[in-house]
Amino acid sequence: MIRPLSETRSPENTGVISRTPLPASRKVYAEGKLHPGLRVPLREISQDPTRSMGPDGTVREEANPPVYVYDTSGPYTDPSVAIDIRKGLSPVRLDWLRRRGDAEQLNDQSSDYGRRRAEDPSLDGLRFTGHRRPWKAKSGRNVSQMHYAKRGLVTEEMEYVAIRENQLLERMAASGLMTQHPGESYGASIPSRITPEFVRDEVARGRAIIPANINHPELEPMAIGRNFLVKINANIGNSAIASSIDEEVEKMVWATRWGADTVMDLSTGKNIHETREWILRNSPVPIGTVPIYQALEKVGGRAEDLTWELYRDTLIEQAEQGVSYFTIHAGVLLRYVPYTASRVTGIVSRGGSIHAKWCLAHHKENFAYEHFEEICEIMKAYDVSFSLGDGLRPGSIADANDRAQFAELDTLGELTQRAWRHDVQVMIEGPGHVPMHLVKINMDKQLETCGEAPFYTLGPLTTDVAPGYDHITSGIGAAMIGWYGCAMLCYVTPKEHLGLPDRDDVKAGVITYKIAAHAADLAKGHPGAQARDNALSKARFEFRWKDQFNLSLDPETAKSFHDETLPQDSAKVAHFCSMCGPQFCSMKVTQDVREYAAKQGLADDKQALEKGLRDKSQEFRRSGAEIYQ
Amino acid sequence: MIRPLSETRSPENTGVISRTPLPASRKVYAEGKLHPGLRVPLREISQDPTRSMGPDGTVREEANPPVYVYDTSGPYTDPSVAIDIRKGLSPVRLDWLRRRGDAEQLNDQSSDYGRRRAEDPSLDGLRFTGHRRPWKAKSGRNVSQMHYAKRGLVTEEMEYVAIRENQLLERMAASGLMTQHPGESYGASIPSRITPEFVRDEVARGRAIIPANINHPELEPMAIGRNFLVKINANIGNSAIASSIDEEVEKMVWATRWGADTVMDLSTGKNIHETREWILRNSPVPIGTVPIYQALEKVGGRAEDLTWELYRDTLIEQAEQGVSYFTIHAGVLLRYVPYTASRVTGIVSRGGSIHAKWCLAHHKENFAYEHFEEICEIMKAYDVSFSLGDGLRPGSIADANDRAQFAELDTLGELTQRAWRHDVQVMIEGPGHVPMHLVKINMDKQLETCGEAPFYTLGPLTTDVAPGYDHITSGIGAAMIGWYGCAMLCYVTPKEHLGLPDRDDVKAGVITYKIAAHAADLAKGHPGAQARDNALSKARFEFRWKDQFNLSLDPETAKSFHDETLPQDSAKVAHFCSMCGPQFCSMKVTQDVREYAAKQGLADDKQALEKGLRDKSQEFRRSGAEIYQ
Repeated sequence: MIRPLSETRSPENTGVISRTPLPASRKVYAEGKLHPGLRVPLREISQDPTRSMGPDGTVREEANPPVYVYDTSGPYTDPSVAIDIRKGLSPVRLDWLRRRGDAEQLNDQSSDYGRRRAEDPSLDGLRFTGHRRPWKAKSGRNVSQMHYAKRGLVTEEMEYVAIRENQLLERMAASGLMTQHPGESYGASIPSRITPEFVRDEVARGRAIIPANINHPELEPMAIGRNFLVKINANIGNSAIASSIDEEVEKMVWATRWGADTVMDLSTGKNIHETREWILRNSPVPIGTVPIYQALEKVGGRAEDLTWELYRDTLIEQAEQGVSYFTIHAGVLLRYVPYTASRVTGIVSRGGSIHAKWCLAHHKENFAYEHFEEICEIMKAYDVSFSLGDGLRPGSIADANDRAQFAELDTLGELTQRAWRHDVQVMIEGPGHVPMHLVKINMDKQLETCGEAPFYTLGPLTTDVAPGYDHITSGIGAAMIGWYGCAMLCYVTPKEHLGLPDRDDVKAGVITYKIAAHAADLAKGHPGAQARDNALSKARFEFRWKDQFNLSLDPETAKSFHDETLPQDSAKVAHFCSMCGPQFCSMKVTQDVREYAAKQGLADDKQALEKGLRDKSQEFRRSGAEIYQ
Repeated sequence: MIRPLSETRSPENTGVISRTPLPASRKVYAEGKLHPGLRVPLREISQDPTRSMGPDGTVREEANPPVYVYDTSGPYTDPSVAIDIRKGLSPVRLDWLRRRGDAEQLNDQSSDYGRRRAEDPSLDGLRFTGHRRPWKAKSGRNVSQMHYAKRGLVTEEMEYVAIRENQLLERMAASGLMTQHPGESYGASIPSRITPEFVRDEVARGRAIIPANINHPELEPMAIGRNFLVKINANIGNSAIASSIDEEVEKMVWATRWGADTVMDLSTGKNIHETREWILRNSPVPIGTVPIYQALEKVGGRAEDLTWELYRDTLIEQAEQGVSYFTIHAGVLLRYVPYTASRVTGIVSRGGSIHAKWCLAHHKENFAYEHFEEICEIMKAYDVSFSLGDGLRPGSIADANDRAQFAELDTLGELTQRAWRHDVQVMIEGPGHVPMHLVKINMDKQLETCGEAPFYTLGPLTTDVAPGYDHITSGIGAAMIGWYGCAMLCYVTPKEHLGLPDRDDVKAGVITYKIAAHAADLAKGHPGAQARDNALSKARFEFRWKDQFNLSLDPETAKSFHDETLPQDSAKVAHFCSMCGPQFCSMKVTQDVREYAAKQGLADDKQALEKGLRDKSQEFRRSGAEIYQ
């Protein structure tokens, strides 16, 4: 399925991996203070100056400040960094790990399966270069960020997150871009500035997680919690059609280029162990998986043949590769399964249905539930976070908020407390298909039931009637639940329910979810969230077309849509747009109004306005009222 | 700009106009009772039977009922109706008009401009065939639906609307598709069945309008009000690139095919009078316009040269052609203009900026405000509805809900009361750009300020940062405000802020807004709104792929996305889908679970479940747990 690297169509790794910085953008690095040497990447978007004509006819220029935005794209968009996917990204977190001294490097993998794969010579061509010895907590130690946080330690990861979340807002503070509407946050309490201590406190309370497996030292730490920026996840997976290793890596690079904060690798099939290794060694974002998928592969797709031992080995295999969060459907209890029998769409979660099938076949309780304590022991030895799966989530509007769904949520609440007793980080997965008016109940119930652990939802889709447009049906629900406090939104692509997403679908899904997440940040009143809107709107109003494109979530599409109507380069500096033409432009008229009001010294004073208007209306008419002739 | 019909590329009018019915769909007509002879079109979507295998191995078939949906596409999707755009649609409302006897047919147009155009021989090739004499209320009469409603008359239009809104739900009632979540309606009170009397009452109270100019007898009446299905509007306009008459008509046909409930013709340029006539004579939906656009054309684009007389003549010209609602920016008052000076994006409404420019140039109050009583006299003589324009709507998140916007809204409230004293129908236009948490305030304020007149918003866009995706940024806000009580949503296409929408953009905008409107209907708990979701989800769960496509808002796209992965015809009846493949399908597993639970006589009874599972788990394993082998 996966061709060895030597056979891929770009042995130099130059053709397939997206590396161009986004237009007018450069990578800047903010330095740590608690932890000198931390270099936190952000994206700086530069702007053109505002040009206007003064009363004397001379052109005035006023500089516009650069805009800084959160950047998920990793070193790929930094031209000064050499990328070789055969070597992987630089393992920046290794030093931190070594300094903390709680972990040790094993001589070999602990997983039977992992060892077998490593020893299989037929996989030599597929395998990531070099023998990597996994890290694991020393006996009796716990390397989870929650454990450190509870003990009062502000880790490098926590300071990194704090700097990253602040997005260099202080540099924009003087620019006038920082004004914004007070938000309406439901139970979220976002400080005006995120401090490392705040991050520590949120992680300690379980209200945020930093998914950061010690075996993924290449990742750039990020936080998922409702007092932080809303995050999004993109799912990738190997396609049925054979692809090369760099094409598999490129899927991850492509998703993070457009803004995916984490990536879930949902690959199935033969070589997922090796593919995952390539992705992890090259990923700047945390990788999540659903280990039951691989476990099922190992038993030839027969759910009945699954065993705890095999599942356990899979968890260890993936933990030692560096997966930062596992979807674990431990809440699908035997007694809940019949609740789904009268549903319109039964069980739609793949993981949920596998566990349900196993439970029924054996008439035993879910092994992930039964062995939950052992799973916690694994999680804390590598700092893998739980993403407690909603195996009984509704698959249709009809099934939303039903007994099966909320029964499982109760169990997820119980499991959250149990995981926290091990200082293991937890987030909770949520639906699914939910009509708008039932969305908030989901959020409120989750917070209450699961002790404010971060919520991570798939959409939700607000109607079932638009296959082909489910990025939109779900983007509506995602924006709303993000506002209500959901910490991470799992994207849905236009192909949902219909087929496998291609490159364009992945981009459409990511951009739609960036919109949803950003709309939520605006509504919550996240500090500085409106700065980019303000900058883009100012650029739009001033006909700085290039800045409008560059500040947008997808500069390429914005520019290409504009070019369809006005392709000339001169149109990029034109003081009108294609919709109305040069004579008929509302923005232009407003500029006249403003110029006029300013000339008269009128602001909002009605008296002055009356006077000014009376005196000057004739003059205004004669001048033609056009600033840009 | 517009080529005469004889030169268009399809003289037979067969190639350009979309006429194919949507797949598995046929037009059905419901009959009036109060008004025998009324034929109200609806779309019937037929379904395949559900096939399952019985315990004895025989295939069982269970019929699935047809689904009835609201249909905006007019006679174009009825193959039994002959269409000739040179003749126009059948003027079904003429009889009703004649029966009521309040109107008379004029010998000639009342508008100077209209007469000049009619007499200009150079326009012969452009002009709609035949001389149409306009209708007008007899002296002292009022032909508005509100006037009839207030006098207790249930017009044909009202019964038509009632039948249409009910969507033949009673035929689906026995099918089990009608179950749904109770809605959460904010101040809306939607009866379980819409009666003609209910329509009359809503129109009389001003809470709904039926835009239905007596000079547009071809239209299929529809209602805009928050106790009815949420409606959507699509804007069309002639493009800069020359197009033929049938291409102009096709734009309207195309938009209504996908679900536009009304169409606004925002054409500018030379021959908009003639183009509008072609569109009106062929349109099954009400047409709205912004008359100030044409008025501005008449003075060469110089706002200062506008006069009340010229504007008045334009209103009459368009009223006698059959435009059913006018956007009139009578709330842009001189004293509000300076409120916009400190905005990030000033005045972004074209109409608003034209009026503002005129006010400043003349230092006079807005002529549309000053002559509002005369405008009402015109409106009621033809039953043109007001769409009171929000000329000062915010053009960016920063400007949302500011003083300028709400000052204008207060004036729109005053004008609503004045229009209602004339029994003229009114709706109120709304923003624009609004972050999610400020959306509801817009709805609440509008209802309170404008006496519950229907609200008609443009989006709103919930962030400014995604040009190229503004159908999505605004679809989020549109769905939410629809839920909160907005009666009609004006679509936004992906090209908004960037260029002129093409055919694909129009479709993307319409489908996105159908999603928003439908999501809102679900949240409000509109009777039967969930039937289509239920039917589609049931089809999805039963792997009836064709039904899933056919029941979707865009069957073509759904099918083509599916075909990209599994193009074979056999895949349309496959009991799995491309995402997981035949072995690995959660829906399939659920069917097993359900079958098993049913076999054991287990529903939700835990005791029975325990027993059944204990007894039968071995048998289940042996059988392979596959229903479809």
